[in-house]
This record gives sequence, C-alpha cells and structure tokens, in this order.
Amino acid sequence: MLLLALDTATELASLALLEGESLLGEYALESPGTYLERLLPAIEELLGAAGRTMDEVEAIAVSQGPGNFTGLRIGVATAKALAWAQQRPLVAVSTLEVLAAQIPFQPHPIAVLVDAKRNEVFFGLFLCPQDLPQGLDGPRRLPVAALPPLLTPPLVLTGPGLNRYGDFLKEHLPPSILWAPPEMRHPRAGTLARLARRFLSEGRESAPESLAPTYLRPAL
Amino acid sequence: MLLLALDTATELASLALLEGESLLGEYALESPGTYLERLLPAIEELLGAAGRTMDEVEAIAVSQGPGNFTGLRIGVATAKALAWAQQRPLVAVSTLEVLAAQIPFQPHPIAVLVDAKRNEVFFGLFLCPQDLPQGLDGPRRLPVAALPPLLTPPLVLTGPGLNRYGDFLKEHLPPSILWAPPEMRHPRAGTLARLARRFLSEGRESAPESLAPTYLRPAL
Repeated sequence: MLLLALDTATELASLALLEGESLLGEYALESPGTYLERLLPAIEELLGAAGRTMDEVEAIAVSQGPGNFTGLRIGVATAKALAWAQQRPLVAVSTLEVLAAQIPFQPHPIAVLVDAKRNEVFFGLFLCPQDLPQGLDGPRRLPVAALPPLLTPPLVLTGPGLNRYGDFLKEHLPPSILWAPPEMRHPRAGTLARLARRFLSEGRESAPESLAPTYLRPAL
Repeated sequence: MLLLALDTATELASLALLEGESLLGEYALESPGTYLERLLPAIEELLGAAGRTMDEVEAIAVSQGPGNFTGLRIGVATAKALAWAQQRPLVAVSTLEVLAAQIPFQPHPIAVLVDAKRNEVFFGLFLCPQDLPQGLDGPRRLPVAALPPLLTPPLVLTGPGLNRYGDFLKEHLPPSILWAPPEMRHPRAGTLARLARRFLSEGRESAPESLAPTYLRPAL
C-alpha cells in the first residue's frame, strides 16, 4: 500500500512516502511561515522523485498535533482535502506519539516536549518497549516551569521543545536524563506513516469531513 | 557551524543540513541509478529551501560505506570535490556506525546489515547505550547464510539488509530479536551530520585528496 504522510506540526515539516515496509522518500523542510506555499509543490516533488502520482497514493496520514496552530491547520486541511478529493482513507496520529515512536526499544519512559509558545509546552509521557508507544500521561499543556518535578530519571527526553527550552531544562533537570539526539527531536513523516499503516490495519480511520487538529488551547 | 552531510551508500540517499543542534532540512531520495544526475540539484534545493548557499557551508560530512559501490563513489567524489573546492573540512563516517547511531539508548547490542549483493551483507555489531555507537565486531562482509549464529538475542537488528534478506532472516532467527522499524533501516544524513560534528570537534578530519570509500570487496 502506497501511503503519503504529512507532518506540519512543528517548525520542521516532514513529508514521506511509504510503500509496504519501504520508505520511498522523505523530505524535511523548515520555516512554518511558508508551509502554505510550499506544501503542495513539495508533495508533487516527493511523488515525482519516486516516480509516482497522486492517483497512486492509497492512503493519507497526517500529524494531528498538538503543535504549531498555523502549521497544523495547513497540514490537516491539506490532508483532509487530498483524502476527500481522491476518496482515500485518512489516518490522524498524535504528534507526540510519533515523536515517542522515533525512539523504540526503550527500557525507560520517554517524555515528549513540543513548544506551545509563551513559555508553555505540550507534554506527553510514553513507554516504548517495542516499536509502538503506549501513553502514560498527556497530552497536556503545561508551563515550562512546571516540568522539572515531572521529569525524573530514568527518562529519555525528546521533542522540539528541547531546543526551545534547552537552557532552562539543562539547568533544572538531573544530568542523568537522556536527551534525544538533535535530529530525532522533530516528528518524521516516515514514522508517522508507519504508525498510520498500523492504525489503518486496525480500522482506525478518520473522517475527512470532521477531522480537527488537537489544539490543547490554554484555558480562558 | 553549518554542516552539509551526504549519504549515498544505499538505495535511499540522504542529504541534511545541520546548524549547531538544529536540523535545517533533510531529504531522502530513492534510486541509486540517478544519484549522479540528482545529487547536486538536490544539494542546491536543500540549501535554497533553508535560505543558505554553498559558500556558507562550513564543513562537509560523507558516509564512507560499506555499501553500494556506485553510490559510494558518487557520494565520496562529490563530498571530496566540494570540500576541496571550498576549502572546508571533510569528515567521513562509517555507514554502519550511522545506522547504529539511529537507535540510541539501547541496553542490547545492535547488529547492522547492509546489502553487499550476491547473497552477502556488510555486517557490523555495536553497542549504543548513549547516543554514540561503540564497535564490537566488523565491518565484515559475510554470506547471508553465515548470519544466524552471529545474531542471537537479546539483539536489535537494523539496516537496509533487513528488507533485502527479510524472508531468510525471519525464517532463521529467533522471534525475540527486535527489528528496527522500516523508516530507521536507511542511513539518515541527519545522524551522519551529528556524528561528523562530534568527530570534527575531536579533530578527526579526512583529507579530501586521499579519502576513499570503505569497499570491503570480496577476496579474489
């Protein structure tokens, strides 16, 4: 099955094309301000590089958030429109779950932090002893200052929030916490595609008409 | 430091641009037969998407193999030429080491398999308890049939060889061995860039004039 996956939930967007167990291509591109202009050309390029067309895509996966509001709206709107127009199944996956799934076979819990602006983060805690994460806590929106008591060793820390709030976290967390390498802190559409493929086999589709991003807006 | 990383050692090439701890962009593209035509345009596009130019690149990293001979020659030749022409440091990293570094924080050994054609694989065994792999065995070139006695649990298995020889391996290996998810079985230039950055800080540069791929050719 040829699956197209889109993630625009953070400042590094990612697109991937997965066929069965083969990753045919994957792009990561920066700068959320230009996702609206660049997303469709990037999809076209990814398909072209793999010698495929949109008609051949059999399912569409999208990163549902939480994350950057503007990026999420563009990604979810694009994925919904493609799924609806082409009459293909659509699968939404939590952005935090994708990030946890990028660090498989872990004996310790994995905490995922995504920037929520204004000194807040989207937080999720997972176990990933095999290749699929199990949620332990979250998704929640929290002030960065509330994190230290939640982040105690043994723990693996990941997500783009590590770059944004790295200085504060380095100062307030024990040094034995394991920090994911920089290139693993952004959601990869390749991993999103893998989770979506599994969800699809379990019948966990989303309806293109009603799918909405997970915003976790602050309480008013 | 702005670092450009190239990996053309397998059937999925990868390019990445890393600045400090930030991944600015990353492309994966299929089909080794077209690397020669597509590598420079892809580098140009990656730089352009990140708003950078080749002049701003401060170091170049290349995946040294073992892997696909044709791909390696193109990647290593391109990296050497760019480093020499722009007078920038060049860092070569083992392709097997990059693959092991993509699965960090592992309590168990990691076996890496890269297709060497004709029912042979390039094999390496690593420990990666933190984020940098330590070599235990290899790189070696082995017949696929010689693998089962070397691959005993507890073990994590990765590399593009899993796709190529998956049927044989599934039949001859114990089910408790952990298989890396499909999207992690190809070398990522983002991980190559991270290792290269570390090696550069340790003074482990390569000379553009003399760098050669690790071929591990069969004995005659």
